[in-house]
Amino acid sequence: MTNTRADALQKPQPDQIKWPRSGLLDLLGIAHPIIQAPMGQHAGPALVAAVCNAGALGSLGCGTMSIDSARRRIAQVRHASARPFNLNFFAHSAPLIDTETADLVRARLAFYYGLLGLGAVPRPTDPLPRFDEKRLQLILTTRPRAVSFHYGIPPAAMVAQIRRAGCVVIGSATTVAEAKALEQHGVDAVIAQGIEAGGPRGTFTRGDGAGLIGTMALVPQVADAVRVPVIAAGGIADGRAIAAAFALGASGVQIGTAFLGCQEAVVSAPYRDALRQATDDDTRLTRVFTGQQARTLRNRMTDELADAEVIDFPAQLSLTRALAKACNDRGRTDFLPLWAGQAVPLLRSLPAAALIEALVAESRLWLPRHPGH
Amino acid sequence: MTNTRADALQKPQPDQIKWPRSGLLDLLGIAHPIIQAPMGQHAGPALVAAVCNAGALGSLGCGTMSIDSARRRIAQVRHASARPFNLNFFAHSAPLIDTETADLVRARLAFYYGLLGLGAVPRPTDPLPRFDEKRLQLILTTRPRAVSFHYGIPPAAMVAQIRRAGCVVIGSATTVAEAKALEQHGVDAVIAQGIEAGGPRGTFTRGDGAGLIGTMALVPQVADAVRVPVIAAGGIADGRAIAAAFALGASGVQIGTAFLGCQEAVVSAPYRDALRQATDDDTRLTRVFTGQQARTLRNRMTDELADAEVIDFPAQLSLTRALAKACNDRGRTDFLPLWAGQAVPLLRSLPAAALIEALVAESRLWLPRHPGH
Repeated sequence: MTNTRADALQKPQPDQIKWPRSGLLDLLGIAHPIIQAPMGQHAGPALVAAVCNAGALGSLGCGTMSIDSARRRIAQVRHASARPFNLNFFAHSAPLIDTETADLVRARLAFYYGLLGLGAVPRPTDPLPRFDEKRLQLILTTRPRAVSFHYGIPPAAMVAQIRRAGCVVIGSATTVAEAKALEQHGVDAVIAQGIEAGGPRGTFTRGDGAGLIGTMALVPQVADAVRVPVIAAGGIADGRAIAAAFALGASGVQIGTAFLGCQEAVVSAPYRDALRQATDDDTRLTRVFTGQQARTLRNRMTDELADAEVIDFPAQLSLTRALAKACNDRGRTDFLPLWAGQAVPLLRSLPAAALIEALVAESRLWLPRHPGH
Repeated sequence: MTNTRADALQKPQPDQIKWPRSGLLDLLGIAHPIIQAPMGQHAGPALVAAVCNAGALGSLGCGTMSIDSARRRIAQVRHASARPFNLNFFAHSAPLIDTETADLVRARLAFYYGLLGLGAVPRPTDPLPRFDEKRLQLILTTRPRAVSFHYGIPPAAMVAQIRRAGCVVIGSATTVAEAKALEQHGVDAVIAQGIEAGGPRGTFTRGDGAGLIGTMALVPQVADAVRVPVIAAGGIADGRAIAAAFALGASGVQIGTAFLGCQEAVVSAPYRDALRQATDDDTRLTRVFTGQQARTLRNRMTDELADAEVIDFPAQLSLTRALAKACNDRGRTDFLPLWAGQAVPLLRSLPAAALIEALVAESRLWLPRHPGH
């Protein structure tokens, strides 16, 4: 937590609200302990910059992006905001593709490919870049204030290099054991991702149903287990939950779904409509889209295949993304991953700055002025 | 919420802590907005009375009990405490036993019956009493301060009768829709049971994976949807989570697992040891014990059968309870339902009064003196 920082980014002026824990604010150079979750294509430079300019931390999801594309987007964020921002990368290992299972999955998907006129189901490939030396160099040359990882963490030597460049390193945990492992690996802060969270779970330890812990139970246990600041994620869409997260021991929150309501988010009209109509019980976890557990709105894909056998993450994505692309192209949602958390009904259609202002004001109502610890 | 009460039980003197919402306290005549969850045999009169005498609300689980046994236990509670207490009943409907599935389940269980030398697996029966006129009369004649229901709610006419007798009626919801249905049915307060909760889920609407919402996401949505006080349940084992529940919109909490650590709880040594050794990731949901989703510590039963097909609740229990009884008799835990919530590692071994004192003191640290609403 004693990073030396080459780039002395200006810290925003303190606002009226005094947050009960300031460690994360100091670490990240932000006014409000709210991190906009990296949401791939849905959170482009416009949303990221708007969040940063409002005193929170915007995150640019680089996990699925080429180096060139990431570099271009980083420049766009920097053009629109001088505030600290976060780059998110995936740290998964190479998929082990079981050909027998792959044949089974392909046979099952053939029906849906036929339905959409997409031809034959392709052979599985490894569709996502892994965190490598080039991406490390991208970080070391662009020096974002923060770098967060999902699906695990790169080798400790890489983490150390990133920290030596003055970047804060954040890891994602879904269990106490994962949080401890991340801390031992050298991260500066840990995201405790509860089961409510939308999109892909960061779980990087294996085991039957591992890492399916609710935010209410997970956050205090992680806060007890690590000394670095804890960022609560999952089920947090308004200030009530931010205040709750602080009470549980968090020093900040990461919010995804609620930012999908912002005008600056890149969300297709059918996806936006689906989010607006969703109830608390309309999401579910499934491996069907990518091979990793992820929370999405129910649709035909989850109704018919949510619990079906899959191949290893992210190879499964190479078999399903043609279905998603066809849905996107045709304005339909039935085979699209409609990432959403369980607090989706609390989503508001506001510009990012107004949303953050509302979150802060709501938090204030329930945060004690002089917390006990 | 304008119950007339025949028995004017003395309200405990207000303590130092001023709770931010007092509606539930007034309704129940208690000093602290903490309800000890009914836990069947594990929460006997000694625990219930100790909880009540400490200013919280003890609950006697009558769901599996005969009328005589319930009456005896009520007398024992009243002998040990003059404070308000809660009686809990089950409101499930009769099981529909599919004989083909039953044969499949029996064939699968035969191996384990053999392992424990228990002879043949019995034919399925309906093993639990349903809420009936006799149980209604028990309530009307004993007049507890509160009556809570799990697995649904009895007919509205019965609810009205119980309320007319001066009892507060509490229902259990696992979705916003269930909470609204309970309110329309006339309940005075709603428990919002998050996915973290140990033991059987109260879900009474059907559907694929219905009612698996985390406490953090569920409580604010239920609080927005109903006008009666909301009681948060699931993942709450210390004062941090109580404060969080209030921030989310709850007027109180129901706590189960944490009370299993109390000396007054009836918990076998092997079960107690298993609870003490559990980590955040050591529980899972399964229908294998009763036919209804319930959270238990992982053991051989869940490792091998957690996702296997089951017959309707509670008939499945008639097939598995011989295994549980054998385990209890022999001091083993491998086929026993080891009910536990995801906050089980936060369990403390304290007398009930000391636990409640600690919960109240911890809550106070994070509750604002003058909440915004």
